[in-house]
Amino acid sequence: MAVAYPHFIGSDNPAMEAGLPSLSPPMSPPVILTQDELKKIAAYKAVEFVESGMVIALGTGSTAKHAVDRIGELLHQGKLKNIIGIPTSKKTHEQALSLDIPLSDLESHPVVDLAIDGADEVDPHLNLVKGRGGSLLREKMIEGACKKFIVIVDESKLVKHIGGSGLAMPVEIVPFCWKFTAQRLQKLFEDSGCVAKLRRATGCGGADKGDPFVTDNGNYIVDLYFKKDFGDLKAASDAILRLPSVVEHGMFIDMATTVIIAGELGIKIKNK
Amino acid sequence: MAVAYPHFIGSDNPAMEAGLPSLSPPMSPPVILTQDELKKIAAYKAVEFVESGMVIALGTGSTAKHAVDRIGELLHQGKLKNIIGIPTSKKTHEQALSLDIPLSDLESHPVVDLAIDGADEVDPHLNLVKGRGGSLLREKMIEGACKKFIVIVDESKLVKHIGGSGLAMPVEIVPFCWKFTAQRLQKLFEDSGCVAKLRRATGCGGADKGDPFVTDNGNYIVDLYFKKDFGDLKAASDAILRLPSVVEHGMFIDMATTVIIAGELGIKIKNK
Repeated sequence: MAVAYPHFIGSDNPAMEAGLPSLSPPMSPPVILTQDELKKIAAYKAVEFVESGMVIALGTGSTAKHAVDRIGELLHQGKLKNIIGIPTSKKTHEQALSLDIPLSDLESHPVVDLAIDGADEVDPHLNLVKGRGGSLLREKMIEGACKKFIVIVDESKLVKHIGGSGLAMPVEIVPFCWKFTAQRLQKLFEDSGCVAKLRRATGCGGADKGDPFVTDNGNYIVDLYFKKDFGDLKAASDAILRLPSVVEHGMFIDMATTVIIAGELGIKIKNK
Repeated sequence: MAVAYPHFIGSDNPAMEAGLPSLSPPMSPPVILTQDELKKIAAYKAVEFVESGMVIALGTGSTAKHAVDRIGELLHQGKLKNIIGIPTSKKTHEQALSLDIPLSDLESHPVVDLAIDGADEVDPHLNLVKGRGGSLLREKMIEGACKKFIVIVDESKLVKHIGGSGLAMPVEIVPFCWKFTAQRLQKLFEDSGCVAKLRRATGCGGADKGDPFVTDNGNYIVDLYFKKDFGDLKAASDAILRLPSVVEHGMFIDMATTVIIAGELGIKIKNK
């Protein structure tokens, strides 16, 4: 892939290196890349921002996994030294352990230099939806404590407005009376045609059957689907958080400092 | 007690019956009542608002316990009929079961006619601190769904401002990295001399030892202590709720519709 895409990976694009938005056309005929290859390109680019001695938040999901792999690889090669990783989920914790990345937590390292993580949606203002993987709470805690937060996505994640993909915006809630909370969430956004659904564990008898999906914190996830833009994100965030049994939601507002987008035509870097 | 305090319990005080504030002097020399007797007086007064056929949220704590007992008694005497109780904690659930009060939940009865519950603090605008018993989340969910919410307290619970008793304002948080969250909560209110302490289970080796207290929802409680008034309650509420691992806090803002205060000199009823 690095061969197919050399001029986007290296340091030969001054605009990109300066952190300026750039969507350069390729120098050679475009090569069709898979979505996973695009994710890997974005992840590798983000890891170029990692320096020896940094405390790094390690994201969760199919895109972040490539970044964690790459950090492990550079440590083994001796190209990075004295990295401390803060995993954002039990899954990433296990991955990082298997790669011998030294790990810590927020209590020992309350200030984190850099986070690298994927996202499910990115809007034009770099607001995100995250948490389709179910680890939104730990991600938000840790990434909220980072000096820089680099988001890595393939171009399919770009949306005009939050909720615009038609896919889920997750809300983590306590299990007690979850139906009541799901109804209140749906009602909160009824003008946007919101539908609220409890997330079920996969492989348990179909979308509406089986046991509820349970987060790392022992909570449930209600997925919100929107037909229309619901407008002011901060107002929506506060309204959701004011519902008593809501723990957290998947909107990451004003948190990303950089978004790296890998597309068929190259890498684009957007800075806040 | 009803004998010592007859003119406050009955319906012979028109001002009180009309719901107007009244702090009438006793007709006979004052009798020294214990705090528990005052709680019982407030609780019995509140149960006068219960009518047959109502769905009633049953509170938790030493004051609410008297109200639940009284409702059970009136059901047994046939003076109340067709009551459905929604308990706000596992403890109240057990108490109500033992009294044969028919029970349901918010999912079957999402609209509740009346809640009766105690409070740890009541400010002049009828804002409350609740949850020193640890069941703030269920109480807030259920009492937020009530048409009327009657708070019953003895006069020691009145404060000039929230936090003014010098006792705890509880915040329910997820256990993950609780120290980090406790530090962030303390920092949020550092101008008010806030100290944040993890609540420990009692009887486990002193205030700073022993296992953390665990809520009905499997979470921890961080108790906040304030040296000074922190001002705007709604702003404080939103700031607390925006911390990712906060589930809920013990401020009940603009929720109480009536507060019944039992003091040495009589009952006072304040309406919103």
